[in-house]
Amino acid sequence: MNKIKVLNICVAGLGNVGAALVSYITSKKEEIKKKSQLEINIVGVSAKNKSKKRNCDISSFPWFDNALDLLSVNNCDVLIELIGQEKDLSYELVKTALEKKLHVVTGNKAMLALYGGELFKIAEKNDVLLLYEAAVAGGIPIIKLIKNNLFLNKIKKISGILNGTTNYILSKMQEDNLSFDEVLKIAKSKGYTSDKESDLDIGGLDAAHKLTILSTLAFGSEIDFSLNETTGINNITIEDIKFANQLGYRIKLISETSLIDGKINAVTCPRLIPKFNPIANVNGPLNAVNIETDQLQNLFLEGEGAGGKATASSIISDLYEIASNTSISSLGFSSLNLKKYLKFEHHNIESNYYVRIMTKDLPGVLSKITSYFNESKISIEKILQIPDNKEIIPIIISTHRIKSKKLMNAITKIQSLSFVMQKISIIQINQDI
Amino acid sequence: MNKIKVLNICVAGLGNVGAALVSYITSKKEEIKKKSQLEINIVGVSAKNKSKKRNCDISSFPWFDNALDLLSVNNCDVLIELIGQEKDLSYELVKTALEKKLHVVTGNKAMLALYGGELFKIAEKNDVLLLYEAAVAGGIPIIKLIKNNLFLNKIKKISGILNGTTNYILSKMQEDNLSFDEVLKIAKSKGYTSDKESDLDIGGLDAAHKLTILSTLAFGSEIDFSLNETTGINNITIEDIKFANQLGYRIKLISETSLIDGKINAVTCPRLIPKFNPIANVNGPLNAVNIETDQLQNLFLEGEGAGGKATASSIISDLYEIASNTSISSLGFSSLNLKKYLKFEHHNIESNYYVRIMTKDLPGVLSKITSYFNESKISIEKILQIPDNKEIIPIIISTHRIKSKKLMNAITKIQSLSFVMQKISIIQINQDI
Repeated sequence: MNKIKVLNICVAGLGNVGAALVSYITSKKEEIKKKSQLEINIVGVSAKNKSKKRNCDISSFPWFDNALDLLSVNNCDVLIELIGQEKDLSYELVKTALEKKLHVVTGNKAMLALYGGELFKIAEKNDVLLLYEAAVAGGIPIIKLIKNNLFLNKIKKISGILNGTTNYILSKMQEDNLSFDEVLKIAKSKGYTSDKESDLDIGGLDAAHKLTILSTLAFGSEIDFSLNETTGINNITIEDIKFANQLGYRIKLISETSLIDGKINAVTCPRLIPKFNPIANVNGPLNAVNIETDQLQNLFLEGEGAGGKATASSIISDLYEIASNTSISSLGFSSLNLKKYLKFEHHNIESNYYVRIMTKDLPGVLSKITSYFNESKISIEKILQIPDNKEIIPIIISTHRIKSKKLMNAITKIQSLSFVMQKISIIQINQDI
Repeated sequence: MNKIKVLNICVAGLGNVGAALVSYITSKKEEIKKKSQLEINIVGVSAKNKSKKRNCDISSFPWFDNALDLLSVNNCDVLIELIGQEKDLSYELVKTALEKKLHVVTGNKAMLALYGGELFKIAEKNDVLLLYEAAVAGGIPIIKLIKNNLFLNKIKKISGILNGTTNYILSKMQEDNLSFDEVLKIAKSKGYTSDKESDLDIGGLDAAHKLTILSTLAFGSEIDFSLNETTGINNITIEDIKFANQLGYRIKLISETSLIDGKINAVTCPRLIPKFNPIANVNGPLNAVNIETDQLQNLFLEGEGAGGKATASSIISDLYEIASNTSISSLGFSSLNLKKYLKFEHHNIESNYYVRIMTKDLPGVLSKITSYFNESKISIEKILQIPDNKEIIPIIISTHRIKSKKLMNAITKIQSLSFVMQKISIIQINQDI
């Protein structure tokens, strides 16, 4: 880039990320131009409410009440979609922009996980880019790292912590000995999640949206959200966190995708991770990703998974990619070469498990429970029975490797015993993440 | 990349990395072509000894006894330099290739740190790329990450572990309670270093070569190895490692570059790192890098810093970059825009320090030593004096923040005391890496 290259952009959505982006581009305009010979001009902005107080000055940019009107700004090169609706206006805006041969940059994982298949095809047909570094793991540049650096490797597995809110909740419960509900309240007060978003966060769906995109990048699978197996953290109690700690683990919401027998195994669920593993020590709202390829035993990245500035950094890197005229397509793969994959049934995987059974404190309870494990040929690794003066006491069992299907058979029987007082809690233990 | 793109390459040097590269390209040729529409053909190879046993089959490729003859292969697009000499043949080969308008890929950090300034200018003048992902941190894609993803950020600091051999030595001393010399022998037997390389590794120069390149990428400084302040691990004893452990630290060889008062502060030296810091837990031959920018509080990467397969992965990513036709130049910055920076004098930085003084076991020794600290107004944080039945005992002192200049004044005086029996060991403590 020796001559000055100009990129005119429109920004739709001026929340946390949008405001950080506008503020950065405005304040660093000359610096960026000097460093990279790239001039970024904001030629239109749109949001729900023009007069809302924001951390950026938008007074010098053309304002549009209706985001779709941004598409009529006649010198616009790139539309940046930060409205974040799963479909509706976000989808219409992105689709129409691509059809009008504008490049699009978005942080909208839900939209890409659900409608990306169609959108990437339109982008490719029209020879424009649809970029989304901000959609997965916030400021961690995982998308370009896979596309630019590891694309000629054969990726075996990608796993990590892709949702900052749930990681904050689990870390905070652990650190401050608080209940799930107490910490959720704090997370909302800190702006890590909202009433609207918390179901997606806590239910694991937000992480699964991101994992859908990673599955496509890693394996060239058609974008297919239904390949995901998803369990949230709703049922993780402070007791589980404490018992896990005693057994030498931390509980983390882990997302993982790999190919097994030619099928996609894309799973998001809470797991017990050995304390010495780096991923067990990713705390607060941070995200982290492990990548294993045929050439790399392990590449580990950790960084900010959310936040205006970090996410804006990813959007800016997408603008830089557009300006670089690379021939690498939006997904690395041509969207015409993506393959339909089947879903690997996760219950066929052998794993160690953590089981918490709340029982009445009666004699013979433990032997009754272990007899069911023996009957189902489930080998027990450890039992914790913590003396307590309460009427209901926990029995904690960690198992050797077993398929979840087989474990569930035993659990169903134990659950129906008269002295079992709550829903039995079962969490996968990851020895080798 | 919809049409098949062909890249013809010549490989000079068939050691560990060269062999892994040739083997990968040979065995994955069809897979790569299908995945990326890129056909990589090896059109010439050269090494010192044709008949040496290698982990790759070179029988089907044109062989050249003299690497310079590779430059006459008439359909060659990219020369890959893996000979690894600091100057001599490596330099002549790369320079001539660039002058002949061939792209060059190299893993040669010493050559780039010392002669890169000239070489990158030739590349840019001739409109070809000189790429070097393999030169820094092996399989960790730190170069492209800075160039492609963080280039429009303002980088504040890059720090990390850039030499796998020294990290292996320090980790192994700690784990197995072995002396420096014992572990160095093991490291050589494992092939992590050789008689030839070990001075560069242990003396910190290899890490400083890599840091030179990172300083340029981060701050646009002219490539200037003389900006580095370098201390190796030669003087680290197993006792230091044990005392550091007792104080809550691990000893790591840390390389760090930042701009202070408009000058480059590029330092490679052993440091005490708090045990809870991720970088303290990077063990064995792994490398790790922390990046702090105006947009990202911290981005942390950990992975294989060496090894044939991991390093070959980085070389392949450079080939992919060449094929992508990106307009991003080899250094991110235009080599004509690089600026001359001055060296920041590291002894002006305030830091905590670890001091080990070996003294005769006599009454009054401790008070004498602390009086010198008091006199120089150096505030002591902790003193460890471990009872021992030996004649010479260690006194371990950790200081509050102080400039090394001031500390050295006191140390010089203490060193000359009659009861001080060995050279006093001083290591920086990093509270906030």
